[in-house]
Amino acid sequence: MALVVQKYGGSSLESADRIKRVADRIVRTRKEGNDVVVVCSAMGDTTDELTDLAQQVNPVPPEREMDMLLTAGERISNALVAMAIESKGAEAISFTGSQAGVITTAAHQNARIIDVTPGRVRQALDEGYIVLVAGFQGVAQDTKDITTLGRGGSDTTAVALAAALNADVCEIYTDVDGVYTADPRIVPSAKHLQQVPYEEMLELAATGAKVLMLRCVEYARRYGVPIHVRSSYNSKPGTLVTGSVEDLSVEQAMITGVSHDRSEAKITVTGVPDNLGVAGKIFRTVADAEIDIDMVLQNVSGTSSGRTDITFTLSKTNGPRAVSELEKLKGELGFEQVRYDDHVGKVSLVGAGMRSHPGVTATFCEALANAGVNIEIINTSEIRISVLIRDEELDTAVRAIHEAFELDGDEEAVVYAGSGR
Amino acid sequence: MALVVQKYGGSSLESADRIKRVADRIVRTRKEGNDVVVVCSAMGDTTDELTDLAQQVNPVPPEREMDMLLTAGERISNALVAMAIESKGAEAISFTGSQAGVITTAAHQNARIIDVTPGRVRQALDEGYIVLVAGFQGVAQDTKDITTLGRGGSDTTAVALAAALNADVCEIYTDVDGVYTADPRIVPSAKHLQQVPYEEMLELAATGAKVLMLRCVEYARRYGVPIHVRSSYNSKPGTLVTGSVEDLSVEQAMITGVSHDRSEAKITVTGVPDNLGVAGKIFRTVADAEIDIDMVLQNVSGTSSGRTDITFTLSKTNGPRAVSELEKLKGELGFEQVRYDDHVGKVSLVGAGMRSHPGVTATFCEALANAGVNIEIINTSEIRISVLIRDEELDTAVRAIHEAFELDGDEEAVVYAGSGR
Repeated sequence: MALVVQKYGGSSLESADRIKRVADRIVRTRKEGNDVVVVCSAMGDTTDELTDLAQQVNPVPPEREMDMLLTAGERISNALVAMAIESKGAEAISFTGSQAGVITTAAHQNARIIDVTPGRVRQALDEGYIVLVAGFQGVAQDTKDITTLGRGGSDTTAVALAAALNADVCEIYTDVDGVYTADPRIVPSAKHLQQVPYEEMLELAATGAKVLMLRCVEYARRYGVPIHVRSSYNSKPGTLVTGSVEDLSVEQAMITGVSHDRSEAKITVTGVPDNLGVAGKIFRTVADAEIDIDMVLQNVSGTSSGRTDITFTLSKTNGPRAVSELEKLKGELGFEQVRYDDHVGKVSLVGAGMRSHPGVTATFCEALANAGVNIEIINTSEIRISVLIRDEELDTAVRAIHEAFELDGDEEAVVYAGSGR
Repeated sequence: MALVVQKYGGSSLESADRIKRVADRIVRTRKEGNDVVVVCSAMGDTTDELTDLAQQVNPVPPEREMDMLLTAGERISNALVAMAIESKGAEAISFTGSQAGVITTAAHQNARIIDVTPGRVRQALDEGYIVLVAGFQGVAQDTKDITTLGRGGSDTTAVALAAALNADVCEIYTDVDGVYTADPRIVPSAKHLQQVPYEEMLELAATGAKVLMLRCVEYARRYGVPIHVRSSYNSKPGTLVTGSVEDLSVEQAMITGVSHDRSEAKITVTGVPDNLGVAGKIFRTVADAEIDIDMVLQNVSGTSSGRTDITFTLSKTNGPRAVSELEKLKGELGFEQVRYDDHVGKVSLVGAGMRSHPGVTATFCEALANAGVNIEIINTSEIRISVLIRDEELDTAVRAIHEAFELDGDEEAVVYAGSGR
């Protein structure tokens, strides 16, 4: 008997009918002889609706109360799924994150899981129940307050429970049937991938592939939990995320896929005096505001002016705040100006094979040049190349790279709108 | 500095605007120098909407999961009120029933409070917070499952917290500004009551006055918590429920008010053999089905036939079930038939003064006779007279009795639609 953890996103739970279909799948998994733990996101637009309400009563709602508010959404969906399962003749029981032993830091809205103590879940499984656990939420170790895990939180809950219960697999049900060589909405001929090693999935998630959140993949890799990404709407085999790139044979695909990201903006600090420590001061200021930066470009210095430009990218949501923090430094550092540009896009190529194939970067750049796409910043890891380009050229760039590396599949992907939390 | 517990019903919280108005009142109470604990019901129709959803996925939803589902409603409203308070510059913190230490039996959907251990509430008050507690819910002592308290549960939460915290008063905000000598929708000239002793309020609540639930008044009486019933929509003085009828001076009002109830049905078992134990068997059968009965009438027996009729009233919701249980006894007991009648109404007169005024019952019956209302069953306590009549005569009967005992006030009542949980 296997232990299977399944996670369902909000769009697969947006109505009573969809909830019943999810219940069918869960009961089927149970009848196939598995122990089943299920993690559900909030139904459809619940989270957005609750956030709207909060904004109406307080434009800057306190984070602790936001967590209290939003976690109600998962409690509702999990209880409804439990009821739907019972109506199909199986026994189900739902737990809040706290009841399921999801212990977190006290960082409201973005808590980290410290420990999972799934005693009640284990006991309920032993008693023959299908166990539902409200995703996205936990309880703070110190304050005993209710916390949420931030974006992709329900996926992380599922993987963390799978790790703590030593589950055989963590199935993530979403609106696509797995991981593709590119977003099928941009590249309809994108190929479905049957298996992706953790490292490659990390790079894909970090560079904009939305099918799995970075944190969830990191967690799965650390604890060796196989993640099976599947569609809520069909029975296709999905994509298994497991194993290391080290285990790949030389014959296996050199390049895994192309990802893209429209969520970043670019900040350029111009006319920065080329003195020791000035760049450090700029990045320290951004870091002190708890803003993560992604790509960095420092133009070659040593011009006659003794000045240089420093460019970096960051999430658009943090853009205005970073600009205003940097403006405060102008007097002290003596730079010319802070330029903000939110019409950029990032396209990345990921593949373990590129380590041993030196021509990859050249092919990548040629493909973009042939498509008339100008590269603003380039950034690489052992198994990834990323470039920053104009946002209106993003689709063209994704297609050009996908074609240059001959990633096309034979079958067209099925894509549904919406996505879970 | 006083400690005030306030409870707000669902209709006073049905929109962001109403939530902000409630927050205004709470902050004002705090600024007047009081410690404030607030218990909120779920917003507007939330509970009905969640119940509908549950019905759609499972026509007989399991009670444990119903509690998990419905308690999300209060969590949402309490978090929103906390946010609204913060936006007005005061500090607020919300707790679930479980976090606030509301310990109950494990009887899902209708749990009883066993104990309240408000350590976290007390601490938050000491730290200067306005404390919000989700009403209607608790945690089962043995199973640690989330429970709900049944109808009127949020009022009971408020009174129980007031008792445990030794609060000075428990203010119940509702859609009327207190208790009247009759339902002002039926008797527009009904008089507002400034104070009602616990015993009279118990009788009024038990006989259909909806302003307070019976359980909440019982709890308040047992622990001596003064309840102040006030309107959410104005600043009128409301009604204070406190004290004993024993403390009333002889000069005080002899009669407090007229209540009515449309929620009951009547069952008559006809042609019951007039043997010892048969009536007992009938009532035992009903009791074994966990159905409460209210009024009872056994017709005078000793007719030549040796048979009698047994009539009793019960809640309409239990009617069909009681009938089917009784039908099963037909063969064994040999009665003729079970008649079901859900077109009955009950009107009651409550007042401590009637103990020492023997003419009350006569005046009561004369008033009904003059209005052409026929009495089907009559039932009395020391401080109450109730009669069962046809439901279409209920309004006429209420007005006739109200007039006969000269209960009219000078001011017209303000009535709003809707009511809380």
